[in-house]
Amino acid sequence: MKLKVAIQGIKGSNHHQVAKDFFGDDIDLVECLSFDKLIEHLIEGTADKGVMAIENSIAGSIIPNYNLIYHNNLHIIGEHYLSIHHNLMVKPGVSIESLVEVHSHPMALLQCKEFFKQYPTIKLVEDVDTAETAKRIQEQNLRTIGAIAPKVASELYDLEIISPEIQTIKNNATRFIILKKQNKVLPKKEINKASLRFITDHKRGSLATVLNVMSDCNMNLTKIQSLPVIETPWKYAFFVDVTFDKYEDFEKGKALLKIMSEDLRILGEYKNARKG
Amino acid sequence: MKLKVAIQGIKGSNHHQVAKDFFGDDIDLVECLSFDKLIEHLIEGTADKGVMAIENSIAGSIIPNYNLIYHNNLHIIGEHYLSIHHNLMVKPGVSIESLVEVHSHPMALLQCKEFFKQYPTIKLVEDVDTAETAKRIQEQNLRTIGAIAPKVASELYDLEIISPEIQTIKNNATRFIILKKQNKVLPKKEINKASLRFITDHKRGSLATVLNVMSDCNMNLTKIQSLPVIETPWKYAFFVDVTFDKYEDFEKGKALLKIMSEDLRILGEYKNARKG
Repeated sequence: MKLKVAIQGIKGSNHHQVAKDFFGDDIDLVECLSFDKLIEHLIEGTADKGVMAIENSIAGSIIPNYNLIYHNNLHIIGEHYLSIHHNLMVKPGVSIESLVEVHSHPMALLQCKEFFKQYPTIKLVEDVDTAETAKRIQEQNLRTIGAIAPKVASELYDLEIISPEIQTIKNNATRFIILKKQNKVLPKKEINKASLRFITDHKRGSLATVLNVMSDCNMNLTKIQSLPVIETPWKYAFFVDVTFDKYEDFEKGKALLKIMSEDLRILGEYKNARKG
Repeated sequence: MKLKVAIQGIKGSNHHQVAKDFFGDDIDLVECLSFDKLIEHLIEGTADKGVMAIENSIAGSIIPNYNLIYHNNLHIIGEHYLSIHHNLMVKPGVSIESLVEVHSHPMALLQCKEFFKQYPTIKLVEDVDTAETAKRIQEQNLRTIGAIAPKVASELYDLEIISPEIQTIKNNATRFIILKKQNKVLPKKEINKASLRFITDHKRGSLATVLNVMSDCNMNLTKIQSLPVIETPWKYAFFVDVTFDKYEDFEKGKALLKIMSEDLRILGEYKNARKG
């Protein structure tokens, strides 16, 4: 039986690309139209693994996703970085001048809006997924609508890329995480990154104290995000990612953090996918 | 001449309510359909002040807005907290059973989705603004569409609230900030909160060191957010809010932070609007 991998979006999306990069081509893809649906598939066991965008090098963290992982007791078992390339694609033969609308995911539109300033008559329309519009253009033979989508979508849906790489900032990476319902325990020597969530009390300096402990235990902070604690307005939880060289250092840090913070949860221990 | 206040959304939105609470009723409202438009009005001088949602007690910070403030050199001159109440409203006489769709802002839909589980036939549709749909229902006499919007929208657009307070989490506050192009210098004794942005180098413990300085200077951290530095993937800037009792403490902290961090910018010094 093939591995069932749930992704946000449909075939041809960036999530699809990550699923291929991480798990290879021999998988059953479970297309989900929202992150909520993706979580549902993992919980109900209709998918074995999930691929979820969590952080974009331009717009920052996708905050609600952190709470989804936490509240549904899911585990991060890996991560993957993808360079995002936004391409304007249309039905073969259609020119940019004949486009009335261009559809894509809000984040893609945001990253390409500079490009469209030279085409003020084109209306930018938000869609749920980058590949979704590409598929629709093919199915309905739409000749006044363009899609911004990954290259793989143009191949899958027989579209022509009339303007490649139209994002303003060329250096654009998105971090995806791999989710699982049950934790997957990796050999300790392969683990050099972890995602944590904890609460600190409101005393002045309490976060600094926790970060000092991390630093003392040779943990390097790669991300920090304060997030309100649901049902308790303005009490903050922290979502933190750390990297480390020795698992023993991390183990010591964990033990200390358990004592010094409130409600420590390890969301995942995995292999750092970032080079350099 | 009346004060021109730009808001995200239209009359009857939560932003409108905040503008009224903060500036009173005697203002000229400049309705904006995006945060980008709002920024444009401030920069071009077609609005004197702007009201912008920045943090929600459920979903956390509205991250792209931090970058908008930073990159456009705007100043935070105040803040305001609003309790959010989501009400389902329809044309008078329409029952919930006859609704085919309910429209609202994605955040409002997210916060009310539990309520709609008992009405699985109603489709939830994303809209740009909470009040926008309310206005359209009135103008086009729509009888199969409901809006989730603040009470003020039902009064403005003659709609009937058939289910008040349908949000899952009743205790739901949103923090708004007041923006201005030029900085407004308040008397020092009125200032007890500030928003900062800085970059630290990648050395282990460098953020902890900065937070230690803040703590030593009697500054209390109320929010922290790491955000990628645009054009420099995976180099992080920090957006931090601090409160303090004495402006002198903050002045000392500022001087130290200027030395210890990179590219320190004070986004605003203002009066803490939070009680307790």
